[in-house]
Amino acid sequence: MNIILVDTREVSGKKVSLTEIRAEHIVKVLRSNVGDNVRVGIVGGGRGTGRILSMSVKYPFEVELELDICEPVSALSPLDLILALPRPIMLKRILAQVTALGVGTIHLIHANRVEKSFWSAGILCEKEYRVHLLHGLEQAVDTRLPEIRLHKRFKPFVEDYLPSSLAGYDSRILAHPAGDSRLVDLIPGSSGRVVLAIGPEGGWVDYEVRKFREQGFGVCSMGERILKVDTAVVALHSGIMALREVVTASRLKKNQFPGSLNGDCSQ
Amino acid sequence: MNIILVDTREVSGKKVSLTEIRAEHIVKVLRSNVGDNVRVGIVGGGRGTGRILSMSVKYPFEVELELDICEPVSALSPLDLILALPRPIMLKRILAQVTALGVGTIHLIHANRVEKSFWSAGILCEKEYRVHLLHGLEQAVDTRLPEIRLHKRFKPFVEDYLPSSLAGYDSRILAHPAGDSRLVDLIPGSSGRVVLAIGPEGGWVDYEVRKFREQGFGVCSMGERILKVDTAVVALHSGIMALREVVTASRLKKNQFPGSLNGDCSQ
Repeated sequence: MNIILVDTREVSGKKVSLTEIRAEHIVKVLRSNVGDNVRVGIVGGGRGTGRILSMSVKYPFEVELELDICEPVSALSPLDLILALPRPIMLKRILAQVTALGVGTIHLIHANRVEKSFWSAGILCEKEYRVHLLHGLEQAVDTRLPEIRLHKRFKPFVEDYLPSSLAGYDSRILAHPAGDSRLVDLIPGSSGRVVLAIGPEGGWVDYEVRKFREQGFGVCSMGERILKVDTAVVALHSGIMALREVVTASRLKKNQFPGSLNGDCSQ
Repeated sequence: MNIILVDTREVSGKKVSLTEIRAEHIVKVLRSNVGDNVRVGIVGGGRGTGRILSMSVKYPFEVELELDICEPVSALSPLDLILALPRPIMLKRILAQVTALGVGTIHLIHANRVEKSFWSAGILCEKEYRVHLLHGLEQAVDTRLPEIRLHKRFKPFVEDYLPSSLAGYDSRILAHPAGDSRLVDLIPGSSGRVVLAIGPEGGWVDYEVRKFREQGFGVCSMGERILKVDTAVVALHSGIMALREVVTASRLKKNQFPGSLNGDCSQ
């Protein structure tokens, strides 16, 4: 817990009263005292500090803070994710990890190799998945919650929903072992947004790959190695963000490095 | 299990007899029949196929294979890892994940913020950690085991061991929130090897950062976000590998993009 997250409804004037895990964290992990400042953020809002006005250092823990929220909410991540619904235990880890890395919207979709039973998992209730998103934010000192959208049927998602939402993306990437593009060639060299689609264990079926291609997705392989979905999500997220920074920086240097490495520099 | 891994000592002539998990996997997950071929690799050796000569499809499962090992062992990963010893449960996950991603040697070292008790964890016995390395190989269809080295004292590691082993690296990267370099500026634009050092929960202390700097390590921040060690390991591994490919490709293009993005193209 690298930041204490507070819901706006908990705040009264500039004060907030914390109990249970957050209060215990301030007492037992941070070992703070009355008058100390702790790092605080409003979920979906700004960040700043909370000065400890009073505290009860024995069970049941209680800490009263006076807030000074002076920094705005973090910038929206340029990356959105389309994820074939993984098994619940893996989904929990992925939600916390990509929230920590920073992501805009996570679309959880059905695919041929997604087990139908996964759709009745408790983790798909907002009350349950929100816990894991908050863990990610607390880890990364962030306050911006990713948006979660569920799409229980593949065809309506790819044929109806996706075309209407794709205009906002400069780059559309489908990860697939038989991909024919390199990741770097699919990266937009601008501040443009990226949507990344990652398949289920066992991968996308041909029909699904074709449908994504029809929507302008470039199909990118991660090389010969087969990765678990949770590893692949973090690896692709980081690869895209690292390359995006390079491509953008290079474009800024007088178009010295145009066209995602494909351009030429006249000698 | 995307490949059936076999120890060279299990092979007699070209035949190997599998029981327990591997046999059960062939029977129940792959649902193979006598005469079918399955993907097989020799730990530390080549890869190929195993033709099923006979099988017992009921408990206790048993499968006899005739091997045809025709592909050489995979190339050595250009990346070695120095990792402040994480808590055991996290170490297990990291070992499987970085083995799946591909890594040469993993140095597990002591640091100020490593809990001493972690050094008595069972996972540090070869018999135990090897299980997680094999899981990583089975996932990634690889056979090359990473080497694991334990360094229980920081100072002898950084002052004695490290200088004698550093000659082999073209790039030395320390991940640290207060880093002053960008990752891309530390990437070698060649086939050179990279060593990446990642700290414990809570990070490196100043003394440790100074000692690594003295050994020529560039200190790189991952931005404002604080990541868990397991997420950071995968993220940095992937970022480095993605950038390395770009830098190498660009160098090959007539030195069009020299000096890790810092060079100039004369117009």
